[in-house]
Parts: sequence; structure tokens; C-alpha cells
Amino acid sequence: MSNETMPNFLKKRAFLTPDRTAVYFQEHTVTFSELYHRSQKVAGQLQTLGIKKDQFVGVLLKNHLDTVVILFALQLIGVKAVILNNRLTAAEIAWQLTDSKASFLIIEDAFAKMELVHLISLKSITKESLFQLEPMEQIIQDEISLSDICTIMYTSGTTGKPKGVIQTYGNHWWSSVGSALNLGQMESDCWLCSVPLFHISGFSILMRSVIYGMPIVLHDHFDAEKTIADIQAKKVTIMSVVGTMLTGIVEALNDRRLSNHFRCMLLGGGPAPLPLLNACVEKDIPVFQSYGMTESSSQIVTLSPEYSLTKLGSAGKTLFPSQLIIVKDNGSPAEAGEAGEIIVKGPNVTPGYLYRPKATKKRFRDGWFYTGDIGYLDADGFLYVIDRRSDLIISGGENIYPAEIEAVLLAHPAVSEVGVTGIDDAKWGQVPVAFIVKNNVVSVDDLQQFCLNKLARYKVPKVFYFTEKLPRNAAKKLLRRTLREWVKDIEYSRN
Amino acid sequence: MSNETMPNFLKKRAFLTPDRTAVYFQEHTVTFSELYHRSQKVAGQLQTLGIKKDQFVGVLLKNHLDTVVILFALQLIGVKAVILNNRLTAAEIAWQLTDSKASFLIIEDAFAKMELVHLISLKSITKESLFQLEPMEQIIQDEISLSDICTIMYTSGTTGKPKGVIQTYGNHWWSSVGSALNLGQMESDCWLCSVPLFHISGFSILMRSVIYGMPIVLHDHFDAEKTIADIQAKKVTIMSVVGTMLTGIVEALNDRRLSNHFRCMLLGGGPAPLPLLNACVEKDIPVFQSYGMTESSSQIVTLSPEYSLTKLGSAGKTLFPSQLIIVKDNGSPAEAGEAGEIIVKGPNVTPGYLYRPKATKKRFRDGWFYTGDIGYLDADGFLYVIDRRSDLIISGGENIYPAEIEAVLLAHPAVSEVGVTGIDDAKWGQVPVAFIVKNNVVSVDDLQQFCLNKLARYKVPKVFYFTEKLPRNAAKKLLRRTLREWVKDIEYSRN
Repeated sequence: MSNETMPNFLKKRAFLTPDRTAVYFQEHTVTFSELYHRSQKVAGQLQTLGIKKDQFVGVLLKNHLDTVVILFALQLIGVKAVILNNRLTAAEIAWQLTDSKASFLIIEDAFAKMELVHLISLKSITKESLFQLEPMEQIIQDEISLSDICTIMYTSGTTGKPKGVIQTYGNHWWSSVGSALNLGQMESDCWLCSVPLFHISGFSILMRSVIYGMPIVLHDHFDAEKTIADIQAKKVTIMSVVGTMLTGIVEALNDRRLSNHFRCMLLGGGPAPLPLLNACVEKDIPVFQSYGMTESSSQIVTLSPEYSLTKLGSAGKTLFPSQLIIVKDNGSPAEAGEAGEIIVKGPNVTPGYLYRPKATKKRFRDGWFYTGDIGYLDADGFLYVIDRRSDLIISGGENIYPAEIEAVLLAHPAVSEVGVTGIDDAKWGQVPVAFIVKNNVVSVDDLQQFCLNKLARYKVPKVFYFTEKLPRNAAKKLLRRTLREWVKDIEYSRN
Repeated sequence: MSNETMPNFLKKRAFLTPDRTAVYFQEHTVTFSELYHRSQKVAGQLQTLGIKKDQFVGVLLKNHLDTVVILFALQLIGVKAVILNNRLTAAEIAWQLTDSKASFLIIEDAFAKMELVHLISLKSITKESLFQLEPMEQIIQDEISLSDICTIMYTSGTTGKPKGVIQTYGNHWWSSVGSALNLGQMESDCWLCSVPLFHISGFSILMRSVIYGMPIVLHDHFDAEKTIADIQAKKVTIMSVVGTMLTGIVEALNDRRLSNHFRCMLLGGGPAPLPLLNACVEKDIPVFQSYGMTESSSQIVTLSPEYSLTKLGSAGKTLFPSQLIIVKDNGSPAEAGEAGEIIVKGPNVTPGYLYRPKATKKRFRDGWFYTGDIGYLDADGFLYVIDRRSDLIISGGENIYPAEIEAVLLAHPAVSEVGVTGIDDAKWGQVPVAFIVKNNVVSVDDLQQFCLNKLARYKVPKVFYFTEKLPRNAAKKLLRRTLREWVKDIEYSRN
């Protein structure tokens, strides 16, 4: 009488509503039945390669219909997808593949020429070659357990080393359901996805598609004009954005309006600035601000547009199945208006980090996940996030962890100490900058090039400051907030 | 990191959308915040009575706002509600209270004068007296576990003895979510409930109300004119009905139409006859036929209106989280078109019968619940129910089990054998009739009166036939289907 199994999501969806559109991508329109049959075929091709249930398989792909097919093919045969950020360097990706004990890598032709292939020992195949294989008779998993691992997405932390966040089928399911109970869900819905599928923001749209029976419009990258055109042409009702995208849409719209059927602009990656919100109100764009993370399988707190101005700066209230409280440094719950660490709980929250019992234990207590973010609840229970994960920098929707950049720079022979922090940026929201204590002659160009070899471009500090000494507390812990104060005092010059 | 706890449903709902309407009842309109505060107060009154978490409490009430408040008050303090059918006789109710080990009974003034109070030994209080008590400081359960028991509803079976069906919070949650994923769910929704709250058909509407944040229009009994008027006035979008109610609405409508915003007539209790469906098509009433039972916490299979004529007589496809297969007598799965027993599985399906491990074991195998109903799936996977639970009679939406009536009649000194079956009835769908082998002189009036003393009125056979011998197979098992054949051969005369 265990009730925790469910039908394999795509298979069930294809059974229920075979003829509904699942994906619009470029000139292609694919129904759920077609998506299922294509994924089924690829499932057979994966099995021809020797890929088996319960293995971890790396996926390094662009936003493309083929990626959707491959991700669902992996689900059909019970394989856990390690979804890799294609903006990372070869070294970063290789590290994640090794850490996750992935037995295989599926990659784009376009990425396959890079040095990555030399850095890894596991087998890899391009999707183009995969699609040429003779498929085996597939062994489809008719049922999944909600506690089974579906995906792994890496996230860095204050310690610098990225950790694989475990996302179960249940996490994705509950996230989808929590979102539907909040935003509503109707047969006429259509969700535009131009955020990366390798992020939870994009991947969660895929899961909603099969769980709701809802078409998605998939874009390979964000383009404001194409967005406006497709919202009209494909009758898009919901779209996920980060601040920079929303600004781009507002600017591109100019005197135009989005179509009437458009009902939800789901905004992640920090609260929107007032001028942007005002511009959206003026243009009738219903903005739903939200707060979430990889560990909560997308949004866990959302603000309805009716509150976007009266509760300016708030991320809203927790979704139905989830809970959130603020705890003070002494561990006791904060009063309304009192700041503290945001801790969350719910069936959408990860069971922990892959192969990292210690790190998992550190972030979980009594079933509550300690986000490391600082915030407060007002008297009505609306959440205000003051500071993301102590030092997290969010740049154009990407999370950047100062510790990771510091670890890279410390490996440079001329660097003896380094402190990284984020500063405000009109285009990207925030960008990283570095303070360096050097022990030898070194140029900014050298340091930049050194970073570019080891870090994704968006993580490379935009400014390097040389200093005699870093601000540290009595325990010698770096005070990154002081760095931010320093930046304000220094005449800021972008390279 | 257990993910199975959730916030107490009503408390969370009142937090999320305090000002939305929860219930329209007669001249009252109650928001979720008001409903929460009223339930909270009653929770304190229940605690004043000494009622505690984890106890079973019987509830014998009419469709009324007070009933909604009491049912949620019980949830707030973690008490399990044994929800009693107020059409049953005192003897039947007393039996269920004893069987469920209820420690308390909450009853209407209107019911309290009946002989019931003399039949039971447990304490009881009228809701009118309950509401006069000084409430204690409430101990609200902020969290519930989805595996906790929420309600008990009794259902009879082929053995005759009613069994308490355990319905967990998870069963109700998943039923609500499965329904939302199928029917869609939007802020403008409003569900009319004129089916009994003591049935899963009515109670499930209450649960959807708090889970979706949706108002319900509660009627104390079904009235076609009032239904039509309230669909208009309260902007009702969805309504649950059984066949006789739908017929009543169609007839009352005459040349009128339901309002445009009305989007779903959810029909339970067996497939609709073609003339009724045709009338609904003609009047633009979107009928969703469905199949479900107390054990599946309401509908588990639903047919969208676009298929109501092409798949005439079908109950549709299983809801997303659930599964259904047909098994043959030898236990192997049936082919498309082949009839067999309907077995179901899913998180909406009961974990079993209260204090009945044997009966539970008999109905469950490998996590599948054996419904006892006979049906087949067509090539597209649509379910056709041929025969409800071997001998189940559905009369005006109420389940009647022949074995239960037979057991009563066998206790009459003049009856030596009895067989009960259902026959078609224009008004009620079906009504029970009895075949009697007598061993002494007895009149039909005697038998009827005898039944009326022990059985709810709707269970009393409408016709009594006297016969020399009942049809039995080699193992002497009564062949109820043969009784139905007999009825066709006999000139049918209603008493």
C-alpha cells in the first residue's frame, strides 16, 4: 500500500492528452504523443550505448528541442541526469562530471571540440552521433518513485566547491503543483522558456509542461523582439524571466503592449527595482516576483501582482505545500520585521547534496533547510530578502559565489590574498569585483586571463583592485561586506 | 529531511489568501480568514469538552456552514472525523460509532431527539450546545503529515458489514491535485456543493476549497431552481452531481441556459444515459463523467466533455497521479476490449479499512486496490464500467449493498432465504428489490416495516417477490444476476 509511486510523467501525459502540443521550437511543433515516441526512441539509443537505469549521465546541451527529448529519454529509463551549465569552463565541467561519478556524457557537436574531452576519462557521445544509433528495444520505467533522483544540478556555496543538488521526481512534482495552486493552471496556458534548461528555472518549465499537459515555447536564447512576437503568435500566457530580461522586454515594447492573454511574468533572481515595476504597471505586464533556489527546485515564495507596489521589494508568501521561517543567530524564531536567516521546508526542497553527508547535515536541521540568505517577514507574513546567501552575487540570473573565484585567484603565484564581492550593475544587476594583495608584480590583464582559463566568463571579476590588506574580523574571517563599502569609496572604473 | 509534512491546510490557506471568499451559505459569505477564526474558536470549544488530538469523533450533521466550521476545527486539533451519513437509521449509526471507537459524537439538535442517543454509550453534544461553550486556548496543529488520518467514511461491501474507509490528509490532497491537473484550476473558480458533505463527493469539495483557495456555494439540499439561480448569482463554474440531479437541472432549465462562466458539470455515480447527454449537449452543459469511490477519495477516472459522445458510456481516463488496469480472473492483465476487474493505485487511494487488516489485505495486492467493479479499457485507454462492485446498487447517488439488506431480512422469523438485487428506475437510476423464500405467513407490509426499523429508507426494497427457491450456483452462492433476469420476466408492479 505504498502510495509513493507514480506513473512515469511523460508516458502518462502522452496517454492522457496525446494530441496536445508539448513544445514549440523554431519551426517545429511537437505533440505529447510525438515527444513520447521520440524520447522512447532515444531511450533505446541510450540503451544501445550501454546506459542503464540508476546511472548518472552528464548532459551538456543548449536550449533545443533535442535537449527536451534527451532529458525525457533519460527519465523514461530511470537514468539520473547531471545537467551541466554550458557557460562553465572545461575544467569546471570536468570537475562536476568526476564529482557526480557520471558514467557518460551527452554533448553537443558545438561543444565537443573543446578541451573538455581531453580533461575527462568517462565516455562521451555527441547528440548527433547518438541520434544515428540503432535503438534497442527500450526498457521503459512505467513507474517512478517520488523519492527517486531525477536530476543533479551543481551549485557553489560559501565554501567554494560546487556541490551537486539532488532533485527528486517528488521535488519537481511538488514544485509544479505548488506553482499551479498559486498561479492557477488552465488548458489555455502556454509557458515561454528562454531561460536555460540547465538551470532549475528552465528545467522546471519542462516538468510543468508534462505534469500540466501544457505547451512550452522554447527559445535557444533570450531575444526581446522574438519574445514579444511569440507571446502574440503562440498565445503565451506565462514566462519566466530575470531582471535583465524584463528590462529588455520593457524597452523593446516601447509603446506597444503584450497580448491580452498574457497573464504572468514570473520574475526570479532578486526583487525588481521600482522604476522597472512602475514601467511594468504602466504597460500592464503582470509581474510575479519570486524567491527560490536550486535547492527548492525553483520558486518557493511568490508575490502576486496585486501586491507588487504595496509590498514593494517583497518576494511574497510561500507556496501552499512549503513553509518558511526566519531564525535569529541564537536559533530562535524572529518577530515580524526582525531580520534573520531564511529557513525553508517542504516537499519541493532537496533531500541534500550528492555524496556530501557533511554539507547536507550542515544545511539541514529538523527537516528545515538553512538557505544562508538573510531576510525578514512583515506583519502580514510577506518575505523581504535582504541579502542572498551571505555573499552570493547574482549576475544576469546566474549565481556567482565569491569563494569560488577567490580559490581560483589564490592559485596564481603572484596573489597572496584575495577578496571578491559583488557590486551593482545597471545591466546585469550585479557583477563580481576582486581585491588583491599581491606578493609579486602582476597585471590586471594577467589576472583576468588567468581567471578566463578556469572560470566561466560571467564569473571573471569585472574590476581588480590592489590593496595592502583585506578587512578581516578577529577570527581572521574575510569581511566581504566591508569590501562593498570600500568599492563605494573608490572611484569605480570599469575595464 | 522528511518531506511528508505540510502546513495545516486551512491555517495555510487563511495565511495565503485571507480575504478570498471561502463559503457562500444561505445569506452568509465567509472569507478564509473568517472561516479559520471560527474554526479556531470551535477547536477551543472541542478542547474544552476534553476532545484531544488523535481521537476519533463522530460527526452527524447536515449540509450547513456550521458543519464546515466543525470539520475544519477537528482538522486544526488533529482529531479524526468519523463522518456519518445522516440518512442512516439510529442502529446503523450506532454500529459505526462503536466500530470506529469514536470517543465523542457531535450532532445536530434536529437529530438529537432520535433514539440514537439511547443506543450509544459514548458522550455526545449538539453543535448548538458546543457553540455555547467557553473555548480553551487552542492547541493548533501547525503541521499535518500526509499519512495522518483525516476522515473515516463507512462503506458497505459484499460481506454486508460496513467498513470504515481510512482517508488520510494525503488521500484528500492528491485527490484535489489530481482533479485540478485534469479540470484546470483558476482564481475565478467557484464550486457548488449540494451533494452531502458526509459523502466523499461533498467532503472532497471542502478540501479543494482550502487547497485551491476557491469559494464554494453550499446548499443544504439539492434544488434545481436554486442551483440555476446560484450558478448565475455566485458565478459558479463547477458543480458535482449525480444523474438524478442532472436530469432535474435539465428539466428545470427548459428553454434557459446556464451562465457562460459555468465550465464543468462533474457527474458521478455511473455513466449518463444517452438522452440525458444529448440534452446536455443541446443546452451547452459541459458534462464530465467520472468514476470513483470512497476508497479513492472521489473521482479517479474522468471523461472530458469533448469525448462524451464519441466515447459514450465511458468514464474516461485515470487522473495523472493514479493508475488503473483491468485484470482477468486468472490475475493476468486484460487486453483492450477484454472485461475484468478494475484495479487502481495511487496516492489518492485509501491505505485500508479501519481496524480491518483482513478486509484490507483482501482488497489490496502489491499496492493495487481491487475495486470489485467490472469493466474494460478500449484501445485508446478509456474505461468502460460494466458492473459496479459485483452487486452494488446505486440509487440517487447512494451506494446500496444487497448483502446488507439480505442480512436484515434474514433476521425476520418468517424469512428463510433472501436475495436482493437492483433494478432500473427512471428517477433514482436504480432501486433495490428483494426475493424472499418464506417459512411462515408474512406480508409485504410486515417486511417493509421490519426493514424501515433497521435500514435507511433508501435501502428498503421497493418490491418484494415471494419465491420457492433462489438461484444458486453449485457452491450454493446466490446468483444475483439471475435475479435481475427474473425481474425482467415478472410483471413489475411498484408498491
